[in-house]
Amino acid sequence: MNQISIAPSAIPSTEHPLDAAELEQLDAYWRACNYLAAGMIYLIDNPLLKEPLAPEHIKQRLLGHWGASPGLSFMYVHLNRIIRKLGQQAIFLAGPGHGAPGVLAPLYLEGTYSEVYPDKSEDEEGMRRFFKQFSFPGGIGSHCTPETPGSIHEGGELGYSISHAFGAAFDNPDLLVAVAVGDGESETGPLATAWHSNKFLNPARDGAVLPILHLNGYKINNPTILSRISHEELEQLFRGYGWTPYFVEGDDPQHMHRAMAATLDACVARIHEIQAQARSGSEPVSRARWPMIVLRSPKGWTGPAEVGGNPVAGTWRAHQVPLAGVRENPEHLQQLEAWLRSYRPETLFDDDGRLVEQLRALSPQGNLRMGSNPAANGGLLRRDLRMPDFREYAVDVAQAAAHKAWNTRPLGELLREVMARNGENFRVFGPDENTSNKLDAIYAASRKLWLADYLPEDDLGGELSPDGRVMEMLSEHTLEGWYEGYILTGRHGFFSTYEAFVHVIDSMYNQHAKWLAICNEIPWRAPIASLNMLITSTVWRQDHNGFTHQDPGFLDVVVNKNPEVTRIYLPPDANCLLVTADRCLRSRNNINVIVSDKQQHLQYLNMDAAIKHCAKGVGIWDWASNDQGCEPDVVMVGCGDIPTQEALAATAMLREHFPDLKVRFINVINLFSLQPEGEHPQGLSDRDFDSLFTLDKPIIFNFHGYPWLIHRLAYRRTNHGQLHVRGYKEKGNINTPLELAINNEIDRFSLVIDVINRVPHLKVAGAHVKEKMRDLQSECRAYAYQHGIDLPEVRDWTWPG
Amino acid sequence: MNQISIAPSAIPSTEHPLDAAELEQLDAYWRACNYLAAGMIYLIDNPLLKEPLAPEHIKQRLLGHWGASPGLSFMYVHLNRIIRKLGQQAIFLAGPGHGAPGVLAPLYLEGTYSEVYPDKSEDEEGMRRFFKQFSFPGGIGSHCTPETPGSIHEGGELGYSISHAFGAAFDNPDLLVAVAVGDGESETGPLATAWHSNKFLNPARDGAVLPILHLNGYKINNPTILSRISHEELEQLFRGYGWTPYFVEGDDPQHMHRAMAATLDACVARIHEIQAQARSGSEPVSRARWPMIVLRSPKGWTGPAEVGGNPVAGTWRAHQVPLAGVRENPEHLQQLEAWLRSYRPETLFDDDGRLVEQLRALSPQGNLRMGSNPAANGGLLRRDLRMPDFREYAVDVAQAAAHKAWNTRPLGELLREVMARNGENFRVFGPDENTSNKLDAIYAASRKLWLADYLPEDDLGGELSPDGRVMEMLSEHTLEGWYEGYILTGRHGFFSTYEAFVHVIDSMYNQHAKWLAICNEIPWRAPIASLNMLITSTVWRQDHNGFTHQDPGFLDVVVNKNPEVTRIYLPPDANCLLVTADRCLRSRNNINVIVSDKQQHLQYLNMDAAIKHCAKGVGIWDWASNDQGCEPDVVMVGCGDIPTQEALAATAMLREHFPDLKVRFINVINLFSLQPEGEHPQGLSDRDFDSLFTLDKPIIFNFHGYPWLIHRLAYRRTNHGQLHVRGYKEKGNINTPLELAINNEIDRFSLVIDVINRVPHLKVAGAHVKEKMRDLQSECRAYAYQHGIDLPEVRDWTWPG
Repeated sequence: MNQISIAPSAIPSTEHPLDAAELEQLDAYWRACNYLAAGMIYLIDNPLLKEPLAPEHIKQRLLGHWGASPGLSFMYVHLNRIIRKLGQQAIFLAGPGHGAPGVLAPLYLEGTYSEVYPDKSEDEEGMRRFFKQFSFPGGIGSHCTPETPGSIHEGGELGYSISHAFGAAFDNPDLLVAVAVGDGESETGPLATAWHSNKFLNPARDGAVLPILHLNGYKINNPTILSRISHEELEQLFRGYGWTPYFVEGDDPQHMHRAMAATLDACVARIHEIQAQARSGSEPVSRARWPMIVLRSPKGWTGPAEVGGNPVAGTWRAHQVPLAGVRENPEHLQQLEAWLRSYRPETLFDDDGRLVEQLRALSPQGNLRMGSNPAANGGLLRRDLRMPDFREYAVDVAQAAAHKAWNTRPLGELLREVMARNGENFRVFGPDENTSNKLDAIYAASRKLWLADYLPEDDLGGELSPDGRVMEMLSEHTLEGWYEGYILTGRHGFFSTYEAFVHVIDSMYNQHAKWLAICNEIPWRAPIASLNMLITSTVWRQDHNGFTHQDPGFLDVVVNKNPEVTRIYLPPDANCLLVTADRCLRSRNNINVIVSDKQQHLQYLNMDAAIKHCAKGVGIWDWASNDQGCEPDVVMVGCGDIPTQEALAATAMLREHFPDLKVRFINVINLFSLQPEGEHPQGLSDRDFDSLFTLDKPIIFNFHGYPWLIHRLAYRRTNHGQLHVRGYKEKGNINTPLELAINNEIDRFSLVIDVINRVPHLKVAGAHVKEKMRDLQSECRAYAYQHGIDLPEVRDWTWPG
Repeated sequence: MNQISIAPSAIPSTEHPLDAAELEQLDAYWRACNYLAAGMIYLIDNPLLKEPLAPEHIKQRLLGHWGASPGLSFMYVHLNRIIRKLGQQAIFLAGPGHGAPGVLAPLYLEGTYSEVYPDKSEDEEGMRRFFKQFSFPGGIGSHCTPETPGSIHEGGELGYSISHAFGAAFDNPDLLVAVAVGDGESETGPLATAWHSNKFLNPARDGAVLPILHLNGYKINNPTILSRISHEELEQLFRGYGWTPYFVEGDDPQHMHRAMAATLDACVARIHEIQAQARSGSEPVSRARWPMIVLRSPKGWTGPAEVGGNPVAGTWRAHQVPLAGVRENPEHLQQLEAWLRSYRPETLFDDDGRLVEQLRALSPQGNLRMGSNPAANGGLLRRDLRMPDFREYAVDVAQAAAHKAWNTRPLGELLREVMARNGENFRVFGPDENTSNKLDAIYAASRKLWLADYLPEDDLGGELSPDGRVMEMLSEHTLEGWYEGYILTGRHGFFSTYEAFVHVIDSMYNQHAKWLAICNEIPWRAPIASLNMLITSTVWRQDHNGFTHQDPGFLDVVVNKNPEVTRIYLPPDANCLLVTADRCLRSRNNINVIVSDKQQHLQYLNMDAAIKHCAKGVGIWDWASNDQGCEPDVVMVGCGDIPTQEALAATAMLREHFPDLKVRFINVINLFSLQPEGEHPQGLSDRDFDSLFTLDKPIIFNFHGYPWLIHRLAYRRTNHGQLHVRGYKEKGNINTPLELAINNEIDRFSLVIDVINRVPHLKVAGAHVKEKMRDLQSECRAYAYQHGIDLPEVRDWTWPG
């Protein structure tokens, strides 16, 4: 076993930036933070310790995490010093989980907390309320939740602090995004790759990210990996990631204040130097070796050194609440009182509970306070996009289902124009697939951002540039994190990704949806741009990539979240996709999921029809129906591009074989229209639903995704008993598109058989047609098998005959 | 912009290990691989080029990825050399996506492919079939799918090659796991953190992992990050990760063969040295700086240098099919022929299409061939676990619902005993939470594995050891990857993780489920141990962690996959959890998801009753029902620990207020019992379902997860119209457990109101009880709010009065 010993780091060779008086003040401010952090974990009363501490002053249930708090406050107060000194615009992201006390404390001291929540005023009663609400029923959480002023990063799930920070810094040239990175979260995959974000930050036009890796040493019950490798390895790792690490290590506050102040001075000076050089225009912009800080300080720093004979500060025992059972155990109560008094609260707060005047001077003023910086309440800065007229990119559709086009190409043109008109306010994100997704028109407006090294042949493609705003990296986590950070700070964007692997970011979707759901209830949080995701390269064209690439289940994850936030659209053709994208780009506080394949598809609606159809979200396609003026015998539904095509083909075949059969054809774009209006704001009323889908006629619903999702949405509808859904049911391997459709029974032939089975008067009369369908199915399967051929077109329903 | 130029690496200073004849043979073998790889992408006929190439010899649809293939084969043939030379046990994992041609080719040449698939024989006709099937309808995929002999890693989704490799190496002391890591996948988060797995590999008892980072240079349309940072940074990065990198760089095959052979010799010698020292017992085991290889070779190496004036080999254009439209474009056809002939197939294969004799000698023999190593068909090596009698850990339940116990503690004892009896065959995985999850009894049988540095105080806890088999790292991705690799190579394990964040590995779950679904159809793949996941720290006890930690939606992801694979259990108490865990640990080729909270809960069933109840998976609890001998008025269902408790409390209150009301109480453990038997092998027949749930009586179903999931499973059941489900509906923040239950209406009071609303004769008679319930609800809410108190117990239904 290798044993390590850790010596305090040397103070950088700049002159000591703190004189004794400054140091004493900074330390006092930090003591005030630590006092508040401990106070909010323990106290419901006696906030200023004016009386001896008694059991009734202590919360019944002790919650919260002391371990990371002192370190977070330490960073915060030192950042305050830089902000004051330089007038630096800065925000702070706290990566470590449950570290909120270390952030809430300085927010309260700087006054922003009381401004936003006047009942948590800067006096004794306000402090009492401030303490009580923490991790208390009806109060606030132990993460930096949306209720926390200055927060764009909750930190409830670990791993996204760095990518969020970079998203915030992009196109924010004057902003310094300081981000505390936990050594626990550093073990997660998303965090481990996000360090490479420095290859995507342009010092001339973007702000700076200053990571402060907090080597606190422990997770809940284990040491952390990064705190237990050699100093040499740690330094190599970060140099290898392209950073210039500065180390601040030790436990003596005096030493640490000096070291941190000097190091921050050096780092910020270096940042400004890099920026000044890049902005001078004297040479082409290149990647910088940005500074970062490794802060190694004891977990639970300044807290109890020992409890019941066990060391606490500096160990995993300091992770949560270092002293338990304080109400019952007089010894612990006494120890808590001694601990709290060790911060000398009487020297920090006046009799009314207000921070003493000379310490108040240590806080930045106004919007320079990190809790008040508008970048962290991005809706305040959000400007509507300058939108082109999407009609200009319309596909010409003289006749429905008569020709094919790439559905996503016109969208690429729309995005190009949005990009061109909204220079520093809009970015497009995608993992190496924008060309494959046929969105490559955007490169005419902006190239792919690339700040790693170039080879001579790169100029051939001409798509890479240090000035690009198309963000491509093979990490869905990093892209999603950047995008969230970008819109949380007031900008706009668009994300396209492969359907099967969007599950990689299920959990990030969940967290962002929850963030938005809470924001909707916070009046001071201004609405931000929606998160727009194009899910493409979809299941029905994953015939040759095979089984692993067939998974339309992201929608099942999406629907579980708050209906005020969630939106799902499945435009069947290029014009509907354009209308949908326009709508999504204009919306706010939603997560818009658009499902559209990247291949060529039949076109159905001209632009006028598309606009009307999309406005309703669901509707009868008269040209494909023959039930005009009467009740249909059957309702055929298509939802999604390929399922719509197959449903239309089935309808055409039905008309041929059963000219008297009344078929109503419905297309569903807006998936939530299926849900009752009381459950989702986009849900159809029962009356509208019933008039579309009838009260009792068979509905054959051909769906893009897993079929059960439709039942989940529509099970309350009157005619649910007659709803028969086809969709993907995990039947696939290396197939032709047609065979994949047949195996999952979404193909035209299966649908015709479905109709015959469900419409009472066809059961006997249709027997021979069923037979014929089965023959055609196997004929086509064999033919396609031989020729690897695509799905037949609607008009080719007799194909291959 | 930084421009880089790359010079060929120096050959390591060991003597040149290849004489001219050996080099020529090795190169010929590699040419044979490349010929086969190109052949399977292009040819459906004329496999040996006995005639001039004609359009009809070419596949209609050209699929597959040439780019990575030559590099993969290069690694494979050099590994073969080491295996032969040293008699080394080895398997090979191909991380890069779509690289299958580079692996299939040497599998065919070594003979394993023809042994497993006799129609792909080692002759001209066999080769023709071998070519045709590739990425062809009804054939095989372009990843190393389960159909590929020797594969435990499909590579369809990027990011898990390293963690799979480590899982395979654990407790396999003689095995070398060589793993090709794509530079594309290296950008993913899961891959970026998996490099730290070297802190968890014990050289004394585990095998070795030899990563070969393939700096191919390009993804689909972009350069890769790791290929575009300086050599110095790259080296620092991997040294920082704790590896010793060796570089093999260049494009001249002669040079590269020499460099690769010398480097592999050096790496394997170093591995054996590390192992010998660790196994000598002369000093305590410590972490090794294992060797790894960085192989920088051109993308599409040996393929067309230029097509239509554009450079191809060495660029992103070589990613997929370098020559398109070969059937139509005579120039391309000619170029393809020249390319194929450049490998001189006539010198490689005899007239019958069989590899010539002197090259056959280059392949290892029998099970030393990487395609035949039984470690890659782990079911062959799998031994049943030596299981203790789970009854020994039973909780004593003299009376149902009379006392509380920690549900997961006895499971911890069971796992401890399983661990003790199955030394090198069983590991437990969890992200830093086994103690928090009350499974810490296991540490008595095995400590947590830790090979990073130690501090003196670590001995205090006594839970860390270089010899532990409890795997804890704060990366669900890495744990899941290790666990999959471990069972795919024939061993057993158990994984526990927090419910809200299991979504982090949704996509890994999907891929493993798909892998198993395919394996079930491959006769030569022997069944492996099931993947067992305990989902704990569940939504209903995430009152203080708050909204972000409330997400029971993993089950919605689970149910979409193949029913032969998926299993979900929600045991209501400790004894049911023991029975369930025992069953899961004995099962094969399933993914077993067990949902059980880690807190104290009421206990209901003694061990005999639990065994019977779990065998059925769903059943009436007579002691809680009063409908004996008649049809009930209402069916009350509990599914999950807390929902069952609340449903029972509601039942007790109903009995008090409406003594004549006949209530049937059902508990559901096996979630899939709700699905029709035709849809899931565990589904109840309609007859059984109807007899339990009645044909027409109201069912109040109190569910652990999102309520819609129950409708998705049961919508085909006769009585679905009367099924009313309660569950989590995203109503939460910082609450008391009771308030969280009330907000989502799964609490006892809401359930009583539900019954009154649904049972016709109670609608009037029950009005005052509804009133009373509402009063109690708000009284309790206020009381709990004040006192932060837990959910009341069943018998305390009048609480707090």
